[in-house]
Amino acid sequence: MLVVMKAQATEDQVRAVCQKIENLGYRAHSMPGATRTAIGITGNKGEVEQGTLEEMPGVQEVIQVSKPYKLVSRDLKEENTVITFPGTAAGIDGPTIGGTGLAIVAGPCAIENREQAFTVAERVHRAGAQFFRGGAYKPRTSPYSFQGLGEEGLRIMAEIRQQFGMKIITEAIDHESLDLVEEYADMIQIGARNMQNFSLLKRAGRSRKPVLLKRGMAATLEEFLMAAEYIMSEGNYNVALCERGVRTFADHTRNTLDLSVVPAVQRLSHLPILVDPSHGTGKRNKVTPLSRAAVAVGADGLMVEVHHKPDEALSDGPQSLFPDQFDELMVQVRQIAAVVGRTVPSIRVGVPVAVSK
Amino acid sequence: MLVVMKAQATEDQVRAVCQKIENLGYRAHSMPGATRTAIGITGNKGEVEQGTLEEMPGVQEVIQVSKPYKLVSRDLKEENTVITFPGTAAGIDGPTIGGTGLAIVAGPCAIENREQAFTVAERVHRAGAQFFRGGAYKPRTSPYSFQGLGEEGLRIMAEIRQQFGMKIITEAIDHESLDLVEEYADMIQIGARNMQNFSLLKRAGRSRKPVLLKRGMAATLEEFLMAAEYIMSEGNYNVALCERGVRTFADHTRNTLDLSVVPAVQRLSHLPILVDPSHGTGKRNKVTPLSRAAVAVGADGLMVEVHHKPDEALSDGPQSLFPDQFDELMVQVRQIAAVVGRTVPSIRVGVPVAVSK
Amino acid sequence: MLVVMKAQATEDQVRAVCQKIENLGYRAHSMPGATRTAIGITGNKGEVEQGTLEEMPGVQEVIQVSKPYKLVSRDLKEENTVITFPGTAAGIDGPTIGGTGLAIVAGPCAIENREQAFTVAERVHRAGAQFFRGGAYKPRTSPYSFQGLGEEGLRIMAEIRQQFGMKIITEAIDHESLDLVEEYADMIQIGARNMQNFSLLKRAGRSRKPVLLKRGMAATLEEFLMAAEYIMSEGNYNVALCERGVRTFADHTRNTLDLSVVPAVQRLSHLPILVDPSHGTGKRNKVTPLSRAAVAVGADGLMVEVHHKPDEALSDGPQSLFPDQFDELMVQVRQIAAVVGRTVPSIRVGVPVAVSK
Amino acid sequence: MLVVMKAQATEDQVRAVCQKIENLGYRAHSMPGATRTAIGITGNKGEVEQGTLEEMPGVQEVIQVSKPYKLVSRDLKEENTVITFPGTAAGIDGPTIGGTGLAIVAGPCAIENREQAFTVAERVHRAGAQFFRGGAYKPRTSPYSFQGLGEEGLRIMAEIRQQFGMKIITEAIDHESLDLVEEYADMIQIGARNMQNFSLLKRAGRSRKPVLLKRGMAATLEEFLMAAEYIMSEGNYNVALCERGVRTFADHTRNTLDLSVVPAVQRLSHLPILVDPSHGTGKRNKVTPLSRAAVAVGADGLMVEVHHKPDEALSDGPQSLFPDQFDELMVQVRQIAAVVGRTVPSIRVGVPVAVSK
Repeated sequence: MLVVMKAQATEDQVRAVCQKIENLGYRAHSMPGATRTAIGITGNKGEVEQGTLEEMPGVQEVIQVSKPYKLVSRDLKEENTVITFPGTAAGIDGPTIGGTGLAIVAGPCAIENREQAFTVAERVHRAGAQFFRGGAYKPRTSPYSFQGLGEEGLRIMAEIRQQFGMKIITEAIDHESLDLVEEYADMIQIGARNMQNFSLLKRAGRSRKPVLLKRGMAATLEEFLMAAEYIMSEGNYNVALCERGVRTFADHTRNTLDLSVVPAVQRLSHLPILVDPSHGTGKRNKVTPLSRAAVAVGADGLMVEVHHKPDEALSDGPQSLFPDQFDELMVQVRQIAAVVGRTVPSIRVGVPVAVSK
Repeated sequence: MLVVMKAQATEDQVRAVCQKIENLGYRAHSMPGATRTAIGITGNKGEVEQGTLEEMPGVQEVIQVSKPYKLVSRDLKEENTVITFPGTAAGIDGPTIGGTGLAIVAGPCAIENREQAFTVAERVHRAGAQFFRGGAYKPRTSPYSFQGLGEEGLRIMAEIRQQFGMKIITEAIDHESLDLVEEYADMIQIGARNMQNFSLLKRAGRSRKPVLLKRGMAATLEEFLMAAEYIMSEGNYNVALCERGVRTFADHTRNTLDLSVVPAVQRLSHLPILVDPSHGTGKRNKVTPLSRAAVAVGADGLMVEVHHKPDEALSDGPQSLFPDQFDELMVQVRQIAAVVGRTVPSIRVGVPVAVSK
Repeated sequence: MLVVMKAQATEDQVRAVCQKIENLGYRAHSMPGATRTAIGITGNKGEVEQGTLEEMPGVQEVIQVSKPYKLVSRDLKEENTVITFPGTAAGIDGPTIGGTGLAIVAGPCAIENREQAFTVAERVHRAGAQFFRGGAYKPRTSPYSFQGLGEEGLRIMAEIRQQFGMKIITEAIDHESLDLVEEYADMIQIGARNMQNFSLLKRAGRSRKPVLLKRGMAATLEEFLMAAEYIMSEGNYNVALCERGVRTFADHTRNTLDLSVVPAVQRLSHLPILVDPSHGTGKRNKVTPLSRAAVAVGADGLMVEVHHKPDEALSDGPQSLFPDQFDELMVQVRQIAAVVGRTVPSIRVGVPVAVSK
Repeated sequence: MLVVMKAQATEDQVRAVCQKIENLGYRAHSMPGATRTAIGITGNKGEVEQGTLEEMPGVQEVIQVSKPYKLVSRDLKEENTVITFPGTAAGIDGPTIGGTGLAIVAGPCAIENREQAFTVAERVHRAGAQFFRGGAYKPRTSPYSFQGLGEEGLRIMAEIRQQFGMKIITEAIDHESLDLVEEYADMIQIGARNMQNFSLLKRAGRSRKPVLLKRGMAATLEEFLMAAEYIMSEGNYNVALCERGVRTFADHTRNTLDLSVVPAVQRLSHLPILVDPSHGTGKRNKVTPLSRAAVAVGADGLMVEVHHKPDEALSDGPQSLFPDQFDELMVQVRQIAAVVGRTVPSIRVGVPVAVSK
């Protein structure tokens, strides 16, 4: 922390601030400058509450310096985290998040029924997705909108894993649903609206399943990393982040997809980061161009909504791709991935693989 | 809903859109204009998914018109909601939120111990506050920060009610804490970070205690009202809203206090709305001016953090008023309240009242 | 400036950064901490370009500390700036901006014709306004909207000064219009869209007329003050600021009026600051409540749009008050002003004053 | 436009609104719905002022529907605008903006002296840039920062064109500098801070040189397009747009680069759009990843700052690439361009081309 004194601050005022800092148990480093004095503070283990200092006579402002996150930081662990998922009984390796291969997560916004889910699953599997997404518990702005099938939805997704071998990622919205998601799915998603639901983050941190944490609509990079820190501080180190657009004044997309957060996360943290251009734009015709951009910027994967009848979708139809559009998207991102030294799974042909859990 | 066609749209394209609308079970109203045609849609009970329409040939854009909230709306209930709290055994009326009298909610950010809580409570009670606030469950950005005393904090607040007669408002952060808050407190607070924790909102909606709902950091007015709708849709109609600042680019305050939301809420909804200038600014020296402004703009009350030793506070010290500053604030807002036809309780002298629940 | 080293930074890296700082001609202050080292920089007169430092091995980040503004700062001049305007030939004092009395600026968005301007002027003068506003040069979003009467509008306003004794404030949008505004008006307004039109700011700084500088739609407090610094750096010290709403995600008002900037400016700068709730909200029904709030928060005055036939107004009709609403607004703000120790001129009765320049 | 009535609106109120609309000279289309009535308005040539309507009894809100831009719109001109620049005397075609080939604009933030400019020019030319950028007139936040070399800077850039054959793009900040930029440069840049300096836009519209218009820091898509409309409405149809980041709460980059605006512009308008990742991020280490992303999303070109000694740069050093980094960037974007069907000029070897104007 750094205390910046006013230009007119007296020497006594500077001394008083230094004294106060020492009384709080820290070390004060006075740095007289041309027009004003600044005082560095070291020796604080956590956050120094800056209240008193800011109100002391002669003080202009107090600036936080140290970053409060630890476990998410590259300071602590330099090499990238790679989350691995179990392979098949036949000995085929499972997919990863954070490795050379991009993680492709696709599926409908919500699981509406068995037929819809399987139809979409069949298509995204064939196009190369290793992960299937689908909401069983839907956080909807309106209480009168479809809220998801609940456990029935989870069961359908477990069957899809069985059938196609894709890993299942689905959102938990409270402790109760997290118990079930943990049981049925391969990765627990914490949605943007719950990014600072700390009770839920801690519960996810006590799970043994990996967690996909979406960035909150107004979360700074620091808050985003601190939310991951909550999960890791409970012992679960398999956390992947996901950028899904932030809220700004811009009204041509539902949210403003902040792709610069990808290299910013990668500089500060060892955790992998995906991009969700479906929620990030809210418009079908923007999903493919922004998917290309996300891979080009260096993201570790994509999360894309696909629906075979988007105009009958029970939620988020306008941003869901048709399966044919998803095929085309995969062709394009595969080419972009090659340029940045990453790989995307090939199109699968023939029968669905027989699969373990 | 309204579909706006492109200038070059053909008559066939217009007809196809109308046909589609009718197929979806609604009525289409074609309005040919000078340069383009617009098509109104009526007969939809809820939201029409706009996906298909937006992607049809000749369509420029699709605009939502109807507002999705019902129970919170003045359309349904024109007169203001007034939340009443029980009076004393001696027959003295309890305070209200939404009536002529302003609701003054004050106390420390977090309950740290019995002595701290009582010291602050004694001071804010004497200054006229009818409601005591204090966090027992604290949603903190960092997992390493003080997280609150939990039930012990609730017990201390129950004693404060017993001693001073102030009603207790405190935050619940999950189902488990809500069970306890409901038992000990007079009003359940849902914090900004949980404004779209729909599971928690529904649980609060099944409570018989009134709910104070804080605006999320990036919540539009519509989302704010829809969150209240979640609570009301479960049967709890005693909801008060609270503006506490939104996130913007501005960096001279922690959040940007959006006072215009007060008349905006009052135009659309019958629910009362308070203002929290402590979180809304994050700076002690801004709390008093913004409190005056909040009362002047027409808010139904204030929620203010007060601490007798803010530089030793375990959370949010920099934005807490000293008790003497709170006294002064009460003097000022009392005068402003009079100008807008509202009242603020007088300073209390002599012994604390003996109290019922 | 402060350089924060990474936790793993070696001593050599710290030394290299200190060396670099010294080479750039500054002094380096190394502060070893528990987990990392920070290095303070002093002796820099202006801004140190932080590029090189940020890219050096072992550097985590570089933080700017010193504020770049000088003339606008309370560091340089502690007492408030009061802008005085000439009085009448009869020896009656002119109005001020920044003194005890609030400055009330009112009038139509644009001067449309002589009759409209005089009708509004007569009403706002009677209600107590000391300043008349009206656009002769209008910065409109669309090139097809009414762009103002130009010099003809200025002539009408000069007549209004002659007739009613109100001082004239009107916007200049380029050097050419500034030459004319300077000639006809009493105060030159620089609009929000031109807040960083530095060429225009410098030209205004060479004028001998006071300048009213509106905050840009996305201007931080620092940028706002730096824009005023541009004017002052050319020698014109009579600058008043004006908050008029900033751009955020919130969509219930046209802009989000940031009233907290008023105490923030007053803490850092000696310049007076007005509030414009008409542009700040864009909605007639929000102007009066936010005007009350602006006075309550401590603003030095108000700038309000008034039109006798707002639905026929050539610009900004929806946010213009009817004259009767302005009368009522003045009654309300007069009462609020008294609470904060300020005064608002009384309603004027009888004949318009005969006036000097 | 569309008027939405309140649920409780009476038939008389609906009739009164329709009557008012007809009186204003438009056609009213009443659409009774299940819970409320909406009234469409057609026949308006421009904008209907919505003031009166919004304040009429029974009216809930008034919604703008028609877009106000015309010349920039694909409604008027479906095929893409391609701006062509003159070729060499030897008959080699000049570069284009908006064609299949990407436009690569590179150079230092500011022209500091002849040697710096030529050193950078030589490098970016060799790497393949067809356009050289460099500021002669710099809009700086502080009046005490370097403001540019003025005409001397323009002369240096004209020599660079002579020497290397690159076209020159440089910013004009007022009428005076625009006169000179028009004389010396090949394309006139209007900077973000002047995007709504309508006087300057009109002046640029009267020029015969193409214009590069940067998006304002808080400009919506509509405002951005309307600014281009200002230029075009004066007769200059050679306008290219440039996304350079917008202002949001996010603090890990200087601005938030909004890449989704690229497909959004391309849907609505025929004008080409470039991306400036240097200003868009403000951080050297983000420029290359975001350049890749910009090409992947479909931008028509890049504008990148390059400096051979960024830590001695007189402005924007921290975001300038080293020439070697720019070489690498060109290699990467050339590969990405191929994936999206665009081309990027090859590295040039051997002697600089001899050049015409």
